[in-house]
Amino acid sequence: MCEADAYLIKDGEEELLMKAVDVIEPEDDQGYRVVNIFGEQKIVKGRIKGMHLVDHKILFEGELG
Amino acid sequence: MCEADAYLIKDGEEELLMKAVDVIEPEDDQGYRVVNIFGEQKIVKGRIKGMHLVDHKILFEGELG
Repeated sequence: MCEADAYLIKDGEEELLMKAVDVIEPEDDQGYRVVNIFGEQKIVKGRIKGMHLVDHKILFEGELG
Repeated sequence: MCEADAYLIKDGEEELLMKAVDVIEPEDDQGYRVVNIFGEQKIVKGRIKGMHLVDHKILFEGELG
């Protein structure tokens, strides 16, 4: 499978936000809705800092919505 | 490999932007730099419309920079 793990950068530290992310979609123009392969979802208010798909890693900057 | 194909939505149509995308990073707060596994890169001015990693698909809305 080709899902990725999402991390949230807060105060310069990477915190695991969600494993096995499948879908990312804009949410209210303030952030993103992140959904994993099990259908669980979280809202991140902030921006995408970087994605490295081959490394299965997505970095967000902001806070949980 | 777990790279994805990036598409650019223009006038409601999906156009293939780049295959085998590895890295996506913000560029000048106006868009994103998209880099594939061969090191080729393109700049998209616009926003991420959606990502579906299990389907290996990334959708941008905007135009080439």
